[in-house]
Amino acid sequence: MQLGMVGLGRMGGNIVRRLLRAGHACVAFDRDPAPGQALAAEGAQAVADLEALVAALAPPRAVWVMLPAGEATEAALLTLAGLLAPGDVLIDGGNSFWKDGVRRGALLRAKGLHFLDIGTSGGVWGLERGYSLMIGGEAEVVRRLDPIFAALVPGKAAAAPTPGRTGDPRPEQGYVHAGPNGAGHFTKMVHNGIEYGMMQAFAEGLDILKHADSEALPPDQRLSLNLADITEAWRRGSVVASWLLDLTAQALAGDPELAGFSGHVSDSGEGRWTVQAAVETAVSAPVLSAALYARFASRDEARFSGKVLSAQRKGFGGHLEPPKPPEAKG
Amino acid sequence: MQLGMVGLGRMGGNIVRRLLRAGHACVAFDRDPAPGQALAAEGAQAVADLEALVAALAPPRAVWVMLPAGEATEAALLTLAGLLAPGDVLIDGGNSFWKDGVRRGALLRAKGLHFLDIGTSGGVWGLERGYSLMIGGEAEVVRRLDPIFAALVPGKAAAAPTPGRTGDPRPEQGYVHAGPNGAGHFTKMVHNGIEYGMMQAFAEGLDILKHADSEALPPDQRLSLNLADITEAWRRGSVVASWLLDLTAQALAGDPELAGFSGHVSDSGEGRWTVQAAVETAVSAPVLSAALYARFASRDEARFSGKVLSAQRKGFGGHLEPPKPPEAKG
Amino acid sequence: MQLGMVGLGRMGGNIVRRLLRAGHACVAFDRDPAPGQALAAEGAQAVADLEALVAALAPPRAVWVMLPAGEATEAALLTLAGLLAPGDVLIDGGNSFWKDGVRRGALLRAKGLHFLDIGTSGGVWGLERGYSLMIGGEAEVVRRLDPIFAALVPGKAAAAPTPGRTGDPRPEQGYVHAGPNGAGHFTKMVHNGIEYGMMQAFAEGLDILKHADSEALPPDQRLSLNLADITEAWRRGSVVASWLLDLTAQALAGDPELAGFSGHVSDSGEGRWTVQAAVETAVSAPVLSAALYARFASRDEARFSGKVLSAQRKGFGGHLEPPKPPEAKG
Amino acid sequence: MQLGMVGLGRMGGNIVRRLLRAGHACVAFDRDPAPGQALAAEGAQAVADLEALVAALAPPRAVWVMLPAGEATEAALLTLAGLLAPGDVLIDGGNSFWKDGVRRGALLRAKGLHFLDIGTSGGVWGLERGYSLMIGGEAEVVRRLDPIFAALVPGKAAAAPTPGRTGDPRPEQGYVHAGPNGAGHFTKMVHNGIEYGMMQAFAEGLDILKHADSEALPPDQRLSLNLADITEAWRRGSVVASWLLDLTAQALAGDPELAGFSGHVSDSGEGRWTVQAAVETAVSAPVLSAALYARFASRDEARFSGKVLSAQRKGFGGHLEPPKPPEAKG
Repeated sequence: MQLGMVGLGRMGGNIVRRLLRAGHACVAFDRDPAPGQALAAEGAQAVADLEALVAALAPPRAVWVMLPAGEATEAALLTLAGLLAPGDVLIDGGNSFWKDGVRRGALLRAKGLHFLDIGTSGGVWGLERGYSLMIGGEAEVVRRLDPIFAALVPGKAAAAPTPGRTGDPRPEQGYVHAGPNGAGHFTKMVHNGIEYGMMQAFAEGLDILKHADSEALPPDQRLSLNLADITEAWRRGSVVASWLLDLTAQALAGDPELAGFSGHVSDSGEGRWTVQAAVETAVSAPVLSAALYARFASRDEARFSGKVLSAQRKGFGGHLEPPKPPEAKG
Repeated sequence: MQLGMVGLGRMGGNIVRRLLRAGHACVAFDRDPAPGQALAAEGAQAVADLEALVAALAPPRAVWVMLPAGEATEAALLTLAGLLAPGDVLIDGGNSFWKDGVRRGALLRAKGLHFLDIGTSGGVWGLERGYSLMIGGEAEVVRRLDPIFAALVPGKAAAAPTPGRTGDPRPEQGYVHAGPNGAGHFTKMVHNGIEYGMMQAFAEGLDILKHADSEALPPDQRLSLNLADITEAWRRGSVVASWLLDLTAQALAGDPELAGFSGHVSDSGEGRWTVQAAVETAVSAPVLSAALYARFASRDEARFSGKVLSAQRKGFGGHLEPPKPPEAKG
Repeated sequence: MQLGMVGLGRMGGNIVRRLLRAGHACVAFDRDPAPGQALAAEGAQAVADLEALVAALAPPRAVWVMLPAGEATEAALLTLAGLLAPGDVLIDGGNSFWKDGVRRGALLRAKGLHFLDIGTSGGVWGLERGYSLMIGGEAEVVRRLDPIFAALVPGKAAAAPTPGRTGDPRPEQGYVHAGPNGAGHFTKMVHNGIEYGMMQAFAEGLDILKHADSEALPPDQRLSLNLADITEAWRRGSVVASWLLDLTAQALAGDPELAGFSGHVSDSGEGRWTVQAAVETAVSAPVLSAALYARFASRDEARFSGKVLSAQRKGFGGHLEPPKPPEAKG
Repeated sequence: MQLGMVGLGRMGGNIVRRLLRAGHACVAFDRDPAPGQALAAEGAQAVADLEALVAALAPPRAVWVMLPAGEATEAALLTLAGLLAPGDVLIDGGNSFWKDGVRRGALLRAKGLHFLDIGTSGGVWGLERGYSLMIGGEAEVVRRLDPIFAALVPGKAAAAPTPGRTGDPRPEQGYVHAGPNGAGHFTKMVHNGIEYGMMQAFAEGLDILKHADSEALPPDQRLSLNLADITEAWRRGSVVASWLLDLTAQALAGDPELAGFSGHVSDSGEGRWTVQAAVETAVSAPVLSAALYARFASRDEARFSGKVLSAQRKGFGGHLEPPKPPEAKG
């Protein structure tokens, strides 16, 4: 099949690459000509602007936009909507807010266009391992592009079969038609929310292991533990076996103290939107929220909330916090 | 009445002072002779050792130990247990672990002594405002010492009567016979756990008010709020009116940025024991725990858990956290 | 002064009542004629529609809308905006979302009108104790209505002076000009968020006190505690002294088991918006969020998240959850 | 090699089975003769009491106790300590508290015996997949029993090699010598703590997916999502790929509503001990704690904390909670 790709960053470029390797034809555009030239050497047709991209595709066209969520994506989708013809498909494969997917779907349908919102997981490993795709949109459009999706996902052999599973065969390949527009990005949002929770579970557990030699413990109870060995052992036969554990063991094998990291952690829109979706629909989500807040707190240099606590403690107890981080006491 | 006091720090010294002012007789001892001399000038009888203290008291004696929880308290109680006579009362007024109160009560009863574990709240304000006392022990012993307690507490006028309240008149004075040994310190422990939760609620709320001018908000939604004015206004007629709010407003009136504090916050045994009691009795206590963890996190300079998160993010996404605290992104 | 009031429910009606008692003139309207008739008997001028309300007020007018947040408030404000003249003031005193206040302020200013968003705390006690008011809008407009606000708030004597406080005298009366439009409802939102956290701190602490007789504890450590006595005692001299504690002690005095309540707890917009504001501005707010989630969980009859856990436990361990709530084990 | 096994429940029995299949000799005892007879048919030597077990083993002996943590394990270890000879090894493979391992190690060393505390993960799948073992004790003793451990673990092929890993080859087989006595059960405890956090992350995420069709959302934003399909798709190429996800997808494939579960979830000692270890060593562990509390709350039929909230709400606002679980409001 033929696919147009707008945005040739790490994600967009590697999606094109994986499609080319599977024998699909790709027309590729990026504001920066360099990545297009690189992909042209691998068999893509690089074009100079969106008009050329649309002209190079045979109808019914499929154009995948892989740009930063927000203004860049919105602008590209609107421009393309003006260039495409009824029956064509526009895809937003970025990390967009799911309600934008709902809105964009309605807007594009009113113009006779089709829209898919696709959550894409896989990061730097997608080219090699395949991507996990969560798709929102019309069933017929998903069916039309099945060959593209089949080329992008890891494939059935990437995991053992689930006993007793029946129904849509797509999920066993590594992608899901999650529902109408919005469902793809909603599902990806929750995926990332879960990811935050799992990551923080490992982070806290390893922090407890690291503090097993704490001076707060009686001397005969202090343990000095080898986290690289422990996480490596857990990879086989334990309940916490997971890809995140594999990556953690790998990081600890190379740098047992993780000294190369500051401990200040970024967060992305999906983690925040997950909490907001939970609040909006009255779902209790303490773990997903705590995971997000741990990241906020890791970057909180102002420490105003801590200052409020210290001011109160001074007020009622005359406690003056020591200038350096205090040990536990009164 | 006559009371012996062991430990003349801020709490013990002021308790003696408040008793003296109410006309009670106090025999006072501290390893350091200075505070005893000061109290002698105010009417106390300062003694040089525990033997002298016991000798100076008429049976049945009452000796209040006001020392740091743990070894100091344990040693003083054991020594005094060897000096006192059957029918005498030993009091632990410090911040002891409640299970120590259970154990000590049984131990001392076996020697014919009586034991009270008393949780004491009031801090630096107790001398002037009176102390809140939570008492564990035998009813008859509490009754015997009622005149002492009545002199220490704020008294009935310190709060409006609770409509419909009947039963023991002690709580309306500001103290409670909470139950058998252990109950006094258990109650004080939970009091402090609640205190942690309330403090953190204010800290988070004020932090959100402070961030109302965040650049994460659209320019026309940014608000610069005066926290000193807001907390002052809340002191009258609002649902959050409280002594902690009074102290917060006071701190903000003097230093709106709370620049005199580091933001690193200590914690005490009671906050930790409260969480452990919740876990031991299967009570869900997310707020009290989160309040404790916020203090732990405020002192966490190693940031190992954050490093684990960053290492995982690099592993799956190639994200390299910036050396400085990052703003929210990808 | 003269004020128009739209919405004569418990809050609106009592605000009118308190203003009448202070000598102000009120023109009152409600879709339901009954409350207006009742207020007319107390000195208000009841009118039959918004046109009559506007006609009955002398310019520059001030009209306070006290209706449920959302459609009812929006409709009344828009209708009044069409009836009022430049220089008039429209007030939204309900529990509106703060961003609506920002938007409405800009909209009304474009029509030459003034707008105040006022967060109002005080509930059923406001008539007697006075209301706590948090006001967003132009300084000049706040100044114009100062006599109204001064009549509504509890007044300076309702709390002891804050040592060292200087600046705007309004907060010492019980109201605050928090900032431009949006600031009033933002401040009220955070007030309620803090309220949720404080309430949950008490709820968890009392639950731990209640479980002090848990069978999970060794028999000699089980304590049966009198929560009515304990909360009453804490009202004097303790760090957790607060209006919420007063109300808690009162409820426990009348019904120590609180048997009249189901344990299913509602939540309001403000608690949710507070969490969303924290997430939007990257403030770590674990306590305020946990308090909200505890309410969600209290109403969660579907228990789907628990079912997921049990399904996983069965999957890896063959654990089959007992049909009744299990005690802690395996 | 030869191993004695005390306790032939699901875990102990299958460990014997796996050892027999690997060619090791097992002497097996259980109070109930049935499982020993079954294992005898598979090649084990079943004995009638602990004396016979010790007599049947050639020194230096190794005896693995696989009994419920607490009294049963303590009694068996003490009895065996009286029967074994210097140089013999006693193993506690159950879910014991790690501080018991520290204590028992010192006690047994004083008698000339060796002790290993082994945390064992693998559940019902261990016989087939192999067990993950976390071992505390002396290095020489671990080395002596390496053939036993190598037969129990999944083996190197069970996971892809970790790039750059060096050091002890045991973890790549699936077991780790974590440190001295206590370290095995400490590591297993934290493993389970992480497991709780990961499980709750999935539970919350799936609950949010399930509520994507909530009436709290505008009609055009409601999504009906197929959780079985989504979790199946995530198993390939996504960041949350894990054994727990495999099990979740499997459960949802068979019962998409998980109607076979009550939603009341048990918890085990390890989850609680993890929180207590975090508190004891001042590690912020909000996610691991929230996961534990969600289980507590799922079983909380008394709902006392909710009743406290409702009583407060009635007190300040006159809110009377509806008899049935209310929707969000006021």
